[in-house]
Amino acid sequence: MIDPSRFLADLHALRAIGTRGRGVVRRAFDAEDVRARLWLAERFAEAGLTARIDPAGNVWGLRGPLLIGSHTDTQPEGGWLDGALGVIAGLEVARSNPEVSVVSFQDEEGRFGATTGSEIWSGALTLEAADALTDLDGLSFAEARRALPSTGPFPDPSDFSAYLELHIEQGPVLDQAGEAAGVVTAIVGLRQITVTLTGAQNHAGTTPMPMRRDAMTGLAAAHAAIADALRNVARPESVWTIGHVALHPNAPSAVPGRARFTVQWRDGEADRLDRMETAIRTALAEAAAATGLALEISETSALPPTAMDPRLRAALARAAEAQLPGRWREMPSGALHDATNVARLMPAAMLFAPSIGGISHDFAEDTAEPDLIAATRILAMAAADLLTT
Amino acid sequence: MIDPSRFLADLHALRAIGTRGRGVVRRAFDAEDVRARLWLAERFAEAGLTARIDPAGNVWGLRGPLLIGSHTDTQPEGGWLDGALGVIAGLEVARSNPEVSVVSFQDEEGRFGATTGSEIWSGALTLEAADALTDLDGLSFAEARRALPSTGPFPDPSDFSAYLELHIEQGPVLDQAGEAAGVVTAIVGLRQITVTLTGAQNHAGTTPMPMRRDAMTGLAAAHAAIADALRNVARPESVWTIGHVALHPNAPSAVPGRARFTVQWRDGEADRLDRMETAIRTALAEAAAATGLALEISETSALPPTAMDPRLRAALARAAEAQLPGRWREMPSGALHDATNVARLMPAAMLFAPSIGGISHDFAEDTAEPDLIAATRILAMAAADLLTT
Repeated sequence: MIDPSRFLADLHALRAIGTRGRGVVRRAFDAEDVRARLWLAERFAEAGLTARIDPAGNVWGLRGPLLIGSHTDTQPEGGWLDGALGVIAGLEVARSNPEVSVVSFQDEEGRFGATTGSEIWSGALTLEAADALTDLDGLSFAEARRALPSTGPFPDPSDFSAYLELHIEQGPVLDQAGEAAGVVTAIVGLRQITVTLTGAQNHAGTTPMPMRRDAMTGLAAAHAAIADALRNVARPESVWTIGHVALHPNAPSAVPGRARFTVQWRDGEADRLDRMETAIRTALAEAAAATGLALEISETSALPPTAMDPRLRAALARAAEAQLPGRWREMPSGALHDATNVARLMPAAMLFAPSIGGISHDFAEDTAEPDLIAATRILAMAAADLLTT
Repeated sequence: MIDPSRFLADLHALRAIGTRGRGVVRRAFDAEDVRARLWLAERFAEAGLTARIDPAGNVWGLRGPLLIGSHTDTQPEGGWLDGALGVIAGLEVARSNPEVSVVSFQDEEGRFGATTGSEIWSGALTLEAADALTDLDGLSFAEARRALPSTGPFPDPSDFSAYLELHIEQGPVLDQAGEAAGVVTAIVGLRQITVTLTGAQNHAGTTPMPMRRDAMTGLAAAHAAIADALRNVARPESVWTIGHVALHPNAPSAVPGRARFTVQWRDGEADRLDRMETAIRTALAEAAAATGLALEISETSALPPTAMDPRLRAALARAAEAQLPGRWREMPSGALHDATNVARLMPAAMLFAPSIGGISHDFAEDTAEPDLIAATRILAMAAADLLTT
């Protein structure tokens, strides 16, 4: 059904565009990204698909109603498989299945926005609004997309019946378990708040301990209180992180007067995200009160969880069990993907290949060759299954 | 004995040099600091003292064997009394006591070093080594001191029998207790380490909680462990602070792979500083082990505690009780002072005036006028007492 050596040759040919050591650099609309997208359009045409570049820079290989894809742009220090794997696997599946179309969405990695190309196609972001987005150097999406002129309009979403996306896991779960594939249950939702604890900045020599209102003490208390509060609310898949911390004045001889930090949590269920939020806010209030600090919490940034379509999931699960009996699992996706946007338009599902050592967004990112081939076979088998049932 | 209105007039005349709102800016050897030092030399001469500017920029009013002083340079945003109070009080005492000499040490506030002028005079720092010190703009002490040419050599320390220094407390203890003076028992010693906890930087969405080695979790655990460990070792005067924290990569969506932070502790007894250090290092090792992080601890920076001379302390205590019966206390100095250096050469002791709200190193720093006058009277009485006994 699929030709492993042809598939791997395509994957390495794409890797050669923007290659840096073992990794790649193809930022959305930079010279290498444009080269890769033009190369991809040629491969689509060669495979008998109708190649099209839409106004957002998404590259399409159009033929059948089952859409398979991901993205070919990368992080500033990107791995060779992140995104590229799902696109090239789609191409390989489409070669032997005329009911399949393929897409490489633009700017999944967020040079300008976040999953920008699929967000525009899904209708969640207008092209006009996207055009005003700028990268860190001030270049606008409007200017940047001139580097890759469109060859046709946005395809009509109603021409497609379903979307499948193969992606690397970007985490350690499959690798550590010695498993070769993951069928995604949901793309987790994310919530984030910025917390400010304010006490009194003082001289670290002259201020007795009982007279201090030390924001670092508050931060430590908040971490402990959140960990404690979430023990009864979170499930094994739930995650939470204090990733960013800024103390003020942040000097060894000053009692910190202010601590500002982010608290982020993720889960596949909206209801659990709610309960985690209640627990976190209560814990923060208790920690602030216990340490005599003023508490300020920003509005919550929220991305809702996206459940994967049950019928598509089942097809992927059947194919996984056929290809890798006992060596796959169902699991949530902790990272955001283009499938989040496409799921607004049609049934969508995702398959994960293992990330060696859980490494991603790094030149060192990699996956064992047999796992790449097995994942593509699962994708091909699920596609065939879905189109005949 | 002292003339309050003359004393206050001098204090306000000095405040007018480099005045900024309610505060002052006189960085060591800047134009205003030089103006203030030349003004001070004139006041010394007027009072019948022999004025001298030594090669380090210390300004002397020489006459008798009892030396009283402090410093007239300020922080970048300095209070009007910090240092200035002790010098002008010394001048006022010297006016009616021919056995008194007065000094304003240079760069106590550390534009170039830390307590630079008194450190040079004490022999702990050579003038040659000091000349190589630079401020944050790269200006050297050697270049800077050309702005205030010396008028004589360093006075011979053996010409003096004892040193007294009046200073604002720079902390909240006296103010909160409603007391008007503090007789210093010791200038506390200080120790500081820089701690690095290293885990694994990971994606905050795709890395399950049990697989994380989160350096922020380690920092919170370290804070809790130190607080716990010091409970049985510290005394009420002991202080400790985590004042500086740097997480890496310090991004909301990344599990922190590294936390680097300072731990600083102070106490008046060397033995207690040792026991605190043992407790802190043990707590850090336990916290690192419990959170699965690698622990690295820098060498300890140490400043030893300086006990104040018992005879001088007793004279200050007698005078304080006479002037402010029941409204003074003995207390350690949590901040460093010129007396730390002078104590290497001769018996030394210090007196504190209250800081309103504990505020110092800030334009808002202040002390009630009656407390300024009472402190100067205590100084005058102790000086008279010491010179007749």
